[in-house]
Amino acid sequence: MDPLKWISREYHEINGSTFDVLETVPSPLEFARIAQISRPVLIRGFQPPAAKVWTNSYLIERLGSSAISVAVTPNGCADAVTRFDGKFYFAEPHVEQMTMASFLSNLSPDKEVAKGRTETYYLQSQNGNLYSSRFFDGLDDPSEFKALRDDVPSEVFWCSEALGRPPDAVNLWMGDSGSVSSVHSDPYENMYTVIRGAKHFTLLPPAEGWCLKERMYPHAMYTRSLGSQTLELRPSSSDIPKVRWSSITEPHLPGALAPDAHPIYITVKMGDTLYLPAGWWHHVRQSGITIALNWWYDMEMRGMNWVILSFLRTIQDVPDGNELDEV
Amino acid sequence: MDPLKWISREYHEINGSTFDVLETVPSPLEFARIAQISRPVLIRGFQPPAAKVWTNSYLIERLGSSAISVAVTPNGCADAVTRFDGKFYFAEPHVEQMTMASFLSNLSPDKEVAKGRTETYYLQSQNGNLYSSRFFDGLDDPSEFKALRDDVPSEVFWCSEALGRPPDAVNLWMGDSGSVSSVHSDPYENMYTVIRGAKHFTLLPPAEGWCLKERMYPHAMYTRSLGSQTLELRPSSSDIPKVRWSSITEPHLPGALAPDAHPIYITVKMGDTLYLPAGWWHHVRQSGITIALNWWYDMEMRGMNWVILSFLRTIQDVPDGNELDEV
Repeated sequence: MDPLKWISREYHEINGSTFDVLETVPSPLEFARIAQISRPVLIRGFQPPAAKVWTNSYLIERLGSSAISVAVTPNGCADAVTRFDGKFYFAEPHVEQMTMASFLSNLSPDKEVAKGRTETYYLQSQNGNLYSSRFFDGLDDPSEFKALRDDVPSEVFWCSEALGRPPDAVNLWMGDSGSVSSVHSDPYENMYTVIRGAKHFTLLPPAEGWCLKERMYPHAMYTRSLGSQTLELRPSSSDIPKVRWSSITEPHLPGALAPDAHPIYITVKMGDTLYLPAGWWHHVRQSGITIALNWWYDMEMRGMNWVILSFLRTIQDVPDGNELDEV
Repeated sequence: MDPLKWISREYHEINGSTFDVLETVPSPLEFARIAQISRPVLIRGFQPPAAKVWTNSYLIERLGSSAISVAVTPNGCADAVTRFDGKFYFAEPHVEQMTMASFLSNLSPDKEVAKGRTETYYLQSQNGNLYSSRFFDGLDDPSEFKALRDDVPSEVFWCSEALGRPPDAVNLWMGDSGSVSSVHSDPYENMYTVIRGAKHFTLLPPAEGWCLKERMYPHAMYTRSLGSQTLELRPSSSDIPKVRWSSITEPHLPGALAPDAHPIYITVKMGDTLYLPAGWWHHVRQSGITIALNWWYDMEMRGMNWVILSFLRTIQDVPDGNELDEV
């Protein structure tokens, strides 16, 4: 018996591949029951002040000349498996400092324009850029978007109450349809609220992670060349450990996944919040200029949750991504 | 890698083998967090009216001449692996109808007396003898102890609220130190309240179930012989499927379990309530005349809980209990 196939088949038999939609925000107790099941839920009616006031001019005015960190790639694929010189790498983006005004001038609501650019900008610093763990520990917090904090609560009330703890990080995400997040999972409970535009999630439960065929890839990073100023992918020193990542770059396309996988497709529109449970795999595309907020909460490590996530990860065979005929 | 050993080792590394004690009953939200972790908790301060009024004379008066079902065995081991004629069987007790007065006259607070009897009586009908699932479905409920319902709430408030559902069954248990429950697990969340005496639980998490060395045993049942009226173990027809049961009959004794097992010992005294999570293995001894109540709630089947309990059970090799040198 193959434990991965057995667990994923049983999981799908019991759970199917649907998701619940709540028309209003849950009570803490309702959310505690949701978190116990650990399946995605689309929640309507959660409206932080940002949803009302974040026009471009407001954001530009608030942030003024302060520098914000933006991921820059030639193709919109930050943190993704990328082919270079006949070899596959895990490519990290170049990170550039710029003003909000300059960043916004590089986004477009038009898909053709967004995808046609030679450089794609994505605000995805995801280090607690609104509130970091230092904030929740009562320490000085160097987050870049402090000026926007009045518009974003540091906690999602019903979630903090249900889990019995504050978030570990709160982040602002901004981009356009030129950017895509490659499929990955995080060991965090995630509340993901879309403020503008729409995000298209392709989700797989932790039990189906093996269908994503993770491989080991050498690390590389985009760098701006001193001469031409163009972005070049620069393989990192061999001292940098290889990165374990899914070899399936477009899991949302028909036929990309084996029939054992049962992806769930959820579009999170302006005003919607996705509860994305810890360990769930997600690939994310976006429509139009998209602004989102997310609250990451530490997952419950006690009990079986973490043990099983580790088990599902550990028993997989993860070959080298460059020692196969195809990835 | 042996999945069972890997999972149980990781589980113990993360969780240890301690348990929490609450000095007061939890709020629904607090209990929801406890249930998510699915580890045993000893809860003080839950006092159903039964705790104050259930003297022997009260119980005898309330139940009068009505018949109650009592398990009778020669050794206090109902539902246990038992040797007979050189072969091992899973033995079910003889069930006899009697009055509460007659039943109580067969119990003793004295350990020597209780263990020395030729027949041991244990009220363990566990079919929702106070409130059955029919009660919670609004149907007529033939439970034997209806006359005691005023003293026992049909629900544990904080538990029903946390889980979002009423119990599936509520049971009364009465016995003395002559009776022991062999180690087993139930697919139910269990709130277990001791009203009189003390219960000594030996617990193992679901991840360590493999240490209990389950085997397949032919079924047998104690029957009162028509002539001598003594109890005899009668092997059932071979049509009755074999029963999967732990071959370790005294897991609480030193050395009975492999070092991979980390038993948790909890004594639940009068006034204490044990939260025994679904799937946890338990062996139960008792001191003195013991009265207990338990509320069984259906476990949450959605998500990974049930999948993992099934997996831990399915990947075990379960040989025949009579085709080995030793059990």
